[in-house]
Amino acid sequence: MCHSHIIDSIKQNVSQRGRPDLTPAVDPAWGCAGESLSKFDRVVDLTHTLTPNFPTYFGTPAFEVEEILSYSKDGVNIRRLSYAEHIGTHIDAPIHFSDDGQTVDQIPVERLVCPLVVIDVREKAASDRDYRLCPRDIAKFEDTYGEIPEGACVAMLSGWEQYIGSRDFRGVDESGVLHFPGIHLEAADFLLNERQVFGLGVDTLSLDFGPSKSSPVHNLWLPSGRYGIEGLANLAALPETGTTMVVGAPTFKGSTGGPCRVLALL
Amino acid sequence: MCHSHIIDSIKQNVSQRGRPDLTPAVDPAWGCAGESLSKFDRVVDLTHTLTPNFPTYFGTPAFEVEEILSYSKDGVNIRRLSYAEHIGTHIDAPIHFSDDGQTVDQIPVERLVCPLVVIDVREKAASDRDYRLCPRDIAKFEDTYGEIPEGACVAMLSGWEQYIGSRDFRGVDESGVLHFPGIHLEAADFLLNERQVFGLGVDTLSLDFGPSKSSPVHNLWLPSGRYGIEGLANLAALPETGTTMVVGAPTFKGSTGGPCRVLALL
Repeated sequence: MCHSHIIDSIKQNVSQRGRPDLTPAVDPAWGCAGESLSKFDRVVDLTHTLTPNFPTYFGTPAFEVEEILSYSKDGVNIRRLSYAEHIGTHIDAPIHFSDDGQTVDQIPVERLVCPLVVIDVREKAASDRDYRLCPRDIAKFEDTYGEIPEGACVAMLSGWEQYIGSRDFRGVDESGVLHFPGIHLEAADFLLNERQVFGLGVDTLSLDFGPSKSSPVHNLWLPSGRYGIEGLANLAALPETGTTMVVGAPTFKGSTGGPCRVLALL
Repeated sequence: MCHSHIIDSIKQNVSQRGRPDLTPAVDPAWGCAGESLSKFDRVVDLTHTLTPNFPTYFGTPAFEVEEILSYSKDGVNIRRLSYAEHIGTHIDAPIHFSDDGQTVDQIPVERLVCPLVVIDVREKAASDRDYRLCPRDIAKFEDTYGEIPEGACVAMLSGWEQYIGSRDFRGVDESGVLHFPGIHLEAADFLLNERQVFGLGVDTLSLDFGPSKSSPVHNLWLPSGRYGIEGLANLAALPETGTTMVVGAPTFKGSTGGPCRVLALL
């Protein structure tokens, strides 16, 4: 059984909501090879491909790369990478905004596999580039889809992904202030205290909106022992609920965060 | 429903085979919050925590780290990392041993979520540190567990994980030759051509065994468009079949490989 009813329901859901079906179905030749081996029908990559000029919060190059060995000369290709931890699609660990919070390698692995909930604020963000996802958006979401489950990751879909490659992704103005959507402190507080949500995701450069100077959401969320994921891709390809997210965060000891492979399993 | 029968059968399987149950069950408070949201009962981390002195193939330090901003002075912790791509628990992309093979970011995402098969050669490796998993081991495995499915990842469990932290992990002798188990070329050829397996994993430093000079398995496997995973952890905590592996490989454009978060979902 290939859970064809699930595929159909996802396709219908996506088509009803006008979201593009960006990813191919899993190759039936292996994806359904034995029901006990595969519990999914589809994988959606929520990760941007990271290039040296991928936009960063501070506006500096995302990473440096150097060829160490090459196949033509040495029979093997190996490169050296160098980067600050918070680039591309990446995780923020509790220690990022605390003195003694968990580093990436200390986050319990079970927390990295969880239900993913997508809240769509594209319409509001389109008319206000400093929009913040607020408790009203959560209430509206829950009216339609039910209460957000404990331990989930809640991701804001602002539509900002369309601006990668243009100056609008950072949205820097004449005064050097950034402009892009984020999460409102009151929404973060509600998700933390009223819903026991564990992860907070955005498709922008920061959990806090662009103009923020004091990073209140980072300062509330991370020291509570929770994680954030910034720079998510392809959220528009997902249904609002029913997805399992896997955060493939490498475990460099002591990391405050870092580039991840984030996958959605449906 | 929390698939308690699956949990029970895994526990029984693990206990029967004398393998330790290293990881806690998923917290029922969130892992089972709605059957449609979670299709698993357990997550096993197949990733080692990477320290600067984690053993590497070439014997050089695994990575360098530098503090850029600190919470006590700057209100935020950020570090800079620098490393050659093939360290710790990591993926080898086709380009690692070819001129024009796929880089990590070009591997189809569906290939990174697949059935994982574990072949246990600990007994043989214990008496021969240069042991290579051979076609006979595969035949014996298939006699018990059935044919290895197309598109799977096959991982060798040699037990070498116990030597991390000692010189035996690299096993360098007086002549500078390394000694640790790997995959035999004939086994790789069988898995590639007779089983259409896509991933090849080891709990040692290389797909090829330590003394190898010409890396025949790398040179067969990677140019065929397949990937390898080296330095896997916790394979002994898995059943031989029935696991879904997720390879959380970050997507630095052009990477020949790199540290991953590899998770097993049961």
